[in-house]
Amino acid sequence: MTTDQYLAELGQQLRVDAVRMTGHAGSGHATSSMSAADLMAVLMARHLRYDFDWPNHPGNDHLILSKGHASPLLYAAYKAAGVLSDEELMTYRTLGSRLEGHPTPRLPWVDVATGSLGQGLPIGVGIALAGKRLDEMPYRVWVMCGDSELAEGSMWEAFEHAGYERLDNLTLIADINRLGQRGPTRHGWDLDAYARRADAFGWHVVQVDGHDPAAVDAAYREALGVTDRPTVVLARTVKGRGVAAVADKEGKHGKPVPDPEAAVEELGGARSLRVEVERPAATTAPRQAHGVHTDLPRYEVGDTVATRNAYGEALAAVGRDRDDVVALDGEVSDSTRSQFFADEHPGRFFECYIAEQEMVASAVGMQVRGWTPFVSTFAAFLSRAHDFLRMAAIGRASLSLAGSHAGVAIGEDGPSQMGLEDLAMFRALHGSTVLAPCDANQTARLTAAMADGGGIRYLRTGRGGSRVIYGPDEEFTVGGSKVLRRSSRDRLTIVAAGVTVHEALRAADELAEGGTAVRVIDLYSVKPVDAHTLLEAAEETGCLLTVEDHRPEGGLGDAVLDAFTDGRPAPRLIRLAVDAMPGSATEAEQLEEAGINASAIVTAVRRQVSDVSATAA
Amino acid sequence: MTTDQYLAELGQQLRVDAVRMTGHAGSGHATSSMSAADLMAVLMARHLRYDFDWPNHPGNDHLILSKGHASPLLYAAYKAAGVLSDEELMTYRTLGSRLEGHPTPRLPWVDVATGSLGQGLPIGVGIALAGKRLDEMPYRVWVMCGDSELAEGSMWEAFEHAGYERLDNLTLIADINRLGQRGPTRHGWDLDAYARRADAFGWHVVQVDGHDPAAVDAAYREALGVTDRPTVVLARTVKGRGVAAVADKEGKHGKPVPDPEAAVEELGGARSLRVEVERPAATTAPRQAHGVHTDLPRYEVGDTVATRNAYGEALAAVGRDRDDVVALDGEVSDSTRSQFFADEHPGRFFECYIAEQEMVASAVGMQVRGWTPFVSTFAAFLSRAHDFLRMAAIGRASLSLAGSHAGVAIGEDGPSQMGLEDLAMFRALHGSTVLAPCDANQTARLTAAMADGGGIRYLRTGRGGSRVIYGPDEEFTVGGSKVLRRSSRDRLTIVAAGVTVHEALRAADELAEGGTAVRVIDLYSVKPVDAHTLLEAAEETGCLLTVEDHRPEGGLGDAVLDAFTDGRPAPRLIRLAVDAMPGSATEAEQLEEAGINASAIVTAVRRQVSDVSATAA
Repeated sequence: MTTDQYLAELGQQLRVDAVRMTGHAGSGHATSSMSAADLMAVLMARHLRYDFDWPNHPGNDHLILSKGHASPLLYAAYKAAGVLSDEELMTYRTLGSRLEGHPTPRLPWVDVATGSLGQGLPIGVGIALAGKRLDEMPYRVWVMCGDSELAEGSMWEAFEHAGYERLDNLTLIADINRLGQRGPTRHGWDLDAYARRADAFGWHVVQVDGHDPAAVDAAYREALGVTDRPTVVLARTVKGRGVAAVADKEGKHGKPVPDPEAAVEELGGARSLRVEVERPAATTAPRQAHGVHTDLPRYEVGDTVATRNAYGEALAAVGRDRDDVVALDGEVSDSTRSQFFADEHPGRFFECYIAEQEMVASAVGMQVRGWTPFVSTFAAFLSRAHDFLRMAAIGRASLSLAGSHAGVAIGEDGPSQMGLEDLAMFRALHGSTVLAPCDANQTARLTAAMADGGGIRYLRTGRGGSRVIYGPDEEFTVGGSKVLRRSSRDRLTIVAAGVTVHEALRAADELAEGGTAVRVIDLYSVKPVDAHTLLEAAEETGCLLTVEDHRPEGGLGDAVLDAFTDGRPAPRLIRLAVDAMPGSATEAEQLEEAGINASAIVTAVRRQVSDVSATAA
Repeated sequence: MTTDQYLAELGQQLRVDAVRMTGHAGSGHATSSMSAADLMAVLMARHLRYDFDWPNHPGNDHLILSKGHASPLLYAAYKAAGVLSDEELMTYRTLGSRLEGHPTPRLPWVDVATGSLGQGLPIGVGIALAGKRLDEMPYRVWVMCGDSELAEGSMWEAFEHAGYERLDNLTLIADINRLGQRGPTRHGWDLDAYARRADAFGWHVVQVDGHDPAAVDAAYREALGVTDRPTVVLARTVKGRGVAAVADKEGKHGKPVPDPEAAVEELGGARSLRVEVERPAATTAPRQAHGVHTDLPRYEVGDTVATRNAYGEALAAVGRDRDDVVALDGEVSDSTRSQFFADEHPGRFFECYIAEQEMVASAVGMQVRGWTPFVSTFAAFLSRAHDFLRMAAIGRASLSLAGSHAGVAIGEDGPSQMGLEDLAMFRALHGSTVLAPCDANQTARLTAAMADGGGIRYLRTGRGGSRVIYGPDEEFTVGGSKVLRRSSRDRLTIVAAGVTVHEALRAADELAEGGTAVRVIDLYSVKPVDAHTLLEAAEETGCLLTVEDHRPEGGLGDAVLDAFTDGRPAPRLIRLAVDAMPGSATEAEQLEEAGINASAIVTAVRRQVSDVSATAA
């Protein structure tokens, strides 16, 4: 057992190293690290169970630094644990270093990227949920947050979720140093204000002097002893603690201390303590069978099936063969059809209620533990979790999402319920995959394919029924497309996805009757796009007309450009998309009003073909 | 004074009309309207102060239906108030009708669009704040919400904001009907659970039987009497109240009742009660001077100034001449430089702490009252408010936003702090304006221009210093561009914005030294784009190379396409953007690593020019 004196010394060492790193780098958050140093020292030396030589040890606790800007503290702790050299510490914030300004999983001991505040706790709740309901293992989740981020609503979604689920394997260590970036926080050192809120959300609350190692130790022990709810340790701390020039002073956020050498001296000089972090008991994670073959639902060509139905049925089927697959929904599983999965695999379904940030965060937490989450809600409401998705991409998370109720085609409910910006949002995420199927068999295949992918994978589904146009044995690859109409006389190529594929086919048939041959491409893989097929179509037909149930910006129309940005001549382009603000109407009326139905396509094609003919004449 | 019996009858009438509307439409949320009917009836008949003949009366109370799906109830109430005919009521959810599935300001009595849950209260807080601190008028804000949406973190951001600001002019009426869309809510009829939470956040709480008009009346009166904090009326209600076939039953959400005619009979038949809503006292809104001339800050060509600094200084200057301009920031005003405005106009600055949803919602609320809000935080963190921005566009809101710390150019802080998807997000919003200035004078001019615009207007600013390249008298129009290098021998056009303009100029100069003339366009107006200048450049140089500090999708590279989607031949296109995941590094290293600096441009141009020459040879 370490002495309290050792804990105090270790805390000072973490401060010294944070001061040195930020001083050396010339930037970084020294004072935010110093407030939490004793909290970290006690955790590492006395309570964390973690095998630093085996970061993937299934029994390891999880430590998430929600206040990611205090990365110097985390890196100093890793050094004390013996896994980072002092030399590497001094690479902090330099090109190529793993020690970025905010932590990312480039370091093997970091589970998720943090740095956008208010995300660490929501993700920690997901890991803790996995511990209770999926892994059924005794690891604990420790989240360290700041006080400023307690203003984020996502934190209270997490408080609600964890309190309701009685996650006693979760401890939040709140570093209440009273000062945000710009100045004092709303509640300053009024720890009672936070205590009242956490208590109301069903948490056990401990208040403690965050610079008294023995008291902090006792607080953590108290947390470990609570068996029916999560615990928050509200620690009163001093920002910049230990260095008079910065301690508890405004205007010292996000920068090195003014005189790092003097500060190190004031902190008692450099130390080289090692901390022996206790390893977890030998254990194994539950077997997660990844079946190679899934009997997907099969739909008859010519039948009418909503793609959201196919998603739900395919997900349920994937869940049969793969017990690593889990599903989360935002209180609309009857609409997204993830209900089909829930009915069949209730133990792997998570009702997240209307809290999309916490839903996506929970999924991020579950994939940390090796689970394969599928997240669903209306496409429009996934925008609520945009920042969580952005951070998930930075954190190299592997995540599948399905957004239902895409576009104006939903009909009467009106614009608030229409996913009209979803393709733009998901395309711009780093390393993302964006899929927009048009029929049930295609949806089923792509749903299964998502389970095997990496990165952020998005599937867009529709509300209304769509005609099944592909046979159940047709194959669809990510990055592929289907050419549905083609001839050697094609005057133009219609590129569509989802509901507009059916409009494109109708238009092509009508045009063919009038003697105008056009090609039709089902570009179901919006990212990556099938450049080969688009280039060929451009070469052979000279003009691409894109038609999409989405805003004109960032969707299918922009996506086809991905095939033409290497300096080669681009084809003629025509874009049909939802330009105006829709109201309520039937599906057919909506498509007509938006100018993306068969008739609008026919008109646009005829105008183009006659224009080009006129120019040629 | 109306009798309690009248209130009960009015409640039944609202139910009857909700049943009739949804029955006639064949869709819509009947049962969600029925639970709140008595709450609405008492409010209309006894407490709301509103002149329905003069929706812009400055003394009017504001009523926001946060549970927007209960629109039939709202429309039924408008009919009872005498401003909607029964005939129009029967147009509900049909093409062209103002009575959309969810309310929008197409109706003059609706302030904001609702329908994405958890937004009405946050916006109501903004209106109430305006009442207290800007208008200094006695109007009240009434928000009616459901219980499901209390799971949204944005609601708790609003609880926190309103509690902290002690907004006693705000009343939340929570219709606790126990059932969400898919089934029971987390807390069912445990009103105490909500009471504990609201109380902890500093609200006065009243619990009431939501179907007892006298009790509801007393609850509202109690709320009106509280003078130091906002009040939430937690009303226990029954979803589908009054019709046995649906009352308190699962699976009845979002649809008409099974037999509308029988239901009307069960509810006592159709009524035609009028409700006399009391008008507000005669009053005038504060004069908001909209100065025609602003003395903007002036910067010397050749100086180095961060565009974020120019934003802050220009905003402060605009605030001098226009007292309708207000600013809101998410606890980073020292970084976004809105601090300059705050220092000069403290009465019109709102610190929103780290709660971006509530910040944007507050701004939406303030523009309801005719104020001109400017919202700022890091560009990356505006993604937190994506759904609020989407809904603001649907609500025809007029809103300016500035996102600082754009792109990899921020340097050492790493990807979590980099705005790399902001252009994609803002471009896809309906009716948006997207501006990306590259120097201080341009930033100042565009900041001033934003104050006069409509819709959602976004300005992207940078962290580091940028060389001033435009004189202080240069003019910049929204939808314009600047051609910075041009000759009759241009082989290619570089299109840039923000930090990459400076890289483009460097590249052009280096290429010119090597004998290759290229055109350079500063496309500071990313939406709308200057189609004329782009078309001319395409025609004259044959190739556009876009270079942006943004993800390849949805930004500048996609935006130039807006000029070429009318079926004309498109030029050759080359896109340089941030394709990989950055880490920490200096600004110069980041631009180099991302392949968007002068040297990368030179390389790409040389390759293209020689390829084209080779092809031509």
